[in-house]
Amino acid sequence: MAADQRRSARRERGLPGGAARRAWPGVTPFAKVAIVGTGAVGASVGGGLRARGLATAVWGLDPANAEAARAVGAIDRVAASLGEALDGADLVLLAAPVPVNRALLGDAALREALGPRAVLTDVSSTKASVVAAAHAGLGARLGRFVASHPIAGSDRAGPAAARSDLIAGAHVIVCPTEDCDADALATVEAMWAALGGRVARMDAAHHDRLFAEVSHWPHAVAFALSASVGCGPLADDARRYHGAGLRDTTRVGGSPPDLWAGILLDNREASLAAAAAFRVELERIERALADGDRVALVAALERGAAWRTTL
Amino acid sequence: MAADQRRSARRERGLPGGAARRAWPGVTPFAKVAIVGTGAVGASVGGGLRARGLATAVWGLDPANAEAARAVGAIDRVAASLGEALDGADLVLLAAPVPVNRALLGDAALREALGPRAVLTDVSSTKASVVAAAHAGLGARLGRFVASHPIAGSDRAGPAAARSDLIAGAHVIVCPTEDCDADALATVEAMWAALGGRVARMDAAHHDRLFAEVSHWPHAVAFALSASVGCGPLADDARRYHGAGLRDTTRVGGSPPDLWAGILLDNREASLAAAAAFRVELERIERALADGDRVALVAALERGAAWRTTL
Repeated sequence: MAADQRRSARRERGLPGGAARRAWPGVTPFAKVAIVGTGAVGASVGGGLRARGLATAVWGLDPANAEAARAVGAIDRVAASLGEALDGADLVLLAAPVPVNRALLGDAALREALGPRAVLTDVSSTKASVVAAAHAGLGARLGRFVASHPIAGSDRAGPAAARSDLIAGAHVIVCPTEDCDADALATVEAMWAALGGRVARMDAAHHDRLFAEVSHWPHAVAFALSASVGCGPLADDARRYHGAGLRDTTRVGGSPPDLWAGILLDNREASLAAAAAFRVELERIERALADGDRVALVAALERGAAWRTTL
Repeated sequence: MAADQRRSARRERGLPGGAARRAWPGVTPFAKVAIVGTGAVGASVGGGLRARGLATAVWGLDPANAEAARAVGAIDRVAASLGEALDGADLVLLAAPVPVNRALLGDAALREALGPRAVLTDVSSTKASVVAAAHAGLGARLGRFVASHPIAGSDRAGPAAARSDLIAGAHVIVCPTEDCDADALATVEAMWAALGGRVARMDAAHHDRLFAEVSHWPHAVAFALSASVGCGPLADDARRYHGAGLRDTTRVGGSPPDLWAGILLDNREASLAAAAAFRVELERIERALADGDRVALVAALERGAAWRTTL
């Protein structure tokens, strides 16, 4: 890709590429932000911090995506190691897949490289196991950790899907532990708010039950629906002749399977509970249809529509 | 609503409101179009024909929506009866819910009011039962009937959801019977093409199997998913904190339940077959998750993603 094409691609995504930075009222820019995992979400946060002048330098660490994240303007520097990424960082963002974020929280190298005033957060889609990993692994640094979940993302993977305005208007759930330092919590909440996020606090277990219902199991449903059509005998006609209904219903069924297997397994019990609740509703519809019972079928469909039309 | 607000609302939807009409190359405008059922799709087709100068007069018949359809510029005249609507019409469009369209095809009043050169089509989402009703009910007029299904619509109901460009770019499936007059088929296909539709012919039974998979059962899935969240204990938090994934996955779960009960029941066997195929995929995912089997879970998710990412 030529340099001018890269600049044009940056502008389209709103990522910085030499634009003047401006101070953000009420927020002191971070001297060094370290983003571990520069996929779609990590690169978006990096690009958003850079675009708003909220960081003097953003370092990225990612075996697969760091160079690409720098190419799209999401980070300034590529770190060669976790130690180099974290050295002197005042904000560390764990934005790798959930199992990797958990492993990092248990990694002595992270604990030792984290400065005493550095603030640590993550963007994992599940929170209870991440908070537990922080408890088990962070030792004296536990108070510097604030678990976060921005309700924003993409069914596309990697820094090419990054947008510096990804967080703008999105809810960001934070799940502070009892041990959390007040200034660490304030810093993380201010960072998300400066990116345009609408911050809400929630207990980690409640978060996980809620997101099993509104995100994790719905992803499984979209994968299953895509598979039932796409592995069936009419797959080619279905690809050609479907309408917007199937496109929307299955959109997140095109998300990265590895990533979503990690999320579902990490929130296994709550996801299975959501699956059971879904199966009850599905069987209600299927039974009414099999029985040719129009009254029961309308009533079953009404149960969904009554809530959906209030969104 | 004041007259200027109405005009403004019309312009936004692209419906005609005094704009100059232009002839459509190669298509002779219809002298009188009768639209029976002026909901979202019927009113869109009416407005599209008017906007493109494809009809000298568009009459509507609808106990609930005819006046509203005239107010948004989708039709010119409101008929007081089926006889008045069909009298002198050279194109008749059945755009009521599927069971109503079927009943009309078996109605002696329709058969008798239909002129010998009038062309009759419908927009029902199911085709085999509609074609069967035409065979049983139309008698000597059977050759004038061409079953159609434009793959376009709205999860919102009524003429307020009408758009004169609804058909533009959409596939339109036609399912001509063996008895179909060549000129009737040519007229209906030209009409859809003039509205911007991409016309494809298909056997009615094949159509119904395909649309059970790509539309009818996916609607049921969206209703069930909406119900499992919206009737659960976390419904209020779910309304507030969900993301785009749930919004898209459940969008068509806000469609009119009555309408969709009619469609599902009309295509009951194919929909149940699609339901069974979906259940196999869903259980594959649920079992892998319950077993904590990451390899099987990734493989199950891949089955959906492999097809979905090619859309």
